[in-house]
Amino acid sequence: MVRSNPQRRAALVDAAIEVLAREGARGLTFRSVDAEAAVPPGTASNYFANRDELLTQAGARVYERLVPDEQTLAEQRAAGRDRETYARLMRDLVGRVSGFRSGYLALLELRLESTRRPALRAILTERVRADLDANIGYHLESGLPGDATSVELLYLALNWLIVEQLTLPDVLSPAERERLVTAAVERIVRE
Amino acid sequence: MVRSNPQRRAALVDAAIEVLAREGARGLTFRSVDAEAAVPPGTASNYFANRDELLTQAGARVYERLVPDEQTLAEQRAAGRDRETYARLMRDLVGRVSGFRSGYLALLELRLESTRRPALRAILTERVRADLDANIGYHLESGLPGDATSVELLYLALNWLIVEQLTLPDVLSPAERERLVTAAVERIVRE
Repeated sequence: MVRSNPQRRAALVDAAIEVLAREGARGLTFRSVDAEAAVPPGTASNYFANRDELLTQAGARVYERLVPDEQTLAEQRAAGRDRETYARLMRDLVGRVSGFRSGYLALLELRLESTRRPALRAILTERVRADLDANIGYHLESGLPGDATSVELLYLALNWLIVEQLTLPDVLSPAERERLVTAAVERIVRE
Repeated sequence: MVRSNPQRRAALVDAAIEVLAREGARGLTFRSVDAEAAVPPGTASNYFANRDELLTQAGARVYERLVPDEQTLAEQRAAGRDRETYARLMRDLVGRVSGFRSGYLALLELRLESTRRPALRAILTERVRADLDANIGYHLESGLPGDATSVELLYLALNWLIVEQLTLPDVLSPAERERLVTAAVERIVRE
């Protein structure tokens, strides 16, 4: 019987994110998730049919946790519509995403694991594509400068900037990273 | 005693790259490398002092194998110096790097492993920074349009494009990826 206490389930998925980031996809087992969540052995296996389901839900949960809160959204709505504002919003975005270090690293682990698991790859592909489309749609409605291509190019550049920051943080200094986000918006976004 | 047959050593390092890409950093053991290289058990442990040395050499070897051959370099030297040529060179570069699929995936595994291993992180940081500096230096001497910032921004955008292609190849179609490389050069590179 699959259990359905939603708080317990969310805590297990959050624990899976931490295990993924720390131990890699290969370190993720029901047992390691039980230990991370400090619940009795056997708990995770009552909540998830199999390991793939746990991997998939961990990925979905990272996206969920990265959705900006109401205050951030209100600030975005109230902000200007010039390129300088856009650059500031992108610097904030990079800070917010890289601030959820374990979540982003878990997503990278899931991407690598998906090269070995077609079912996981299909689900992640759908999620990433939907996220990119939502970003494009949101952007085009926002009144901020830039077309769909500029959203895609920023998506590419900022993702690798976050990879760099989280995996090899001394390749670029914080000041260099900030300068590059600003330069990316200035060059990629046409008014 | 550490053995020194250079062909044998290179074959073991190449085998380590394949194991890293296929099994992840956690799957890399002397035993798995011996099996991948089809050599007697115990061979890898005669060539490398420890697992960290093998990881480090695998990373260095990927960079080595990504250096363009003489023919490619000659074509680059003979090519035009306009933005259209630059875009073509970047499309070729993405094709060449993503064509060494196991090498690029191995580097991603090493980046994630380096979040757990400070010694590996230090060595990779130096290697990646040196590579970026070399790219900037080479570019500024080449006579191609664009400044150091444009090289850095292309480095960011094209790396994530390759991650996307190798991990979730259906998020962007081949035609979309090609269009994005061209657009990246057009927008980021100022003549």
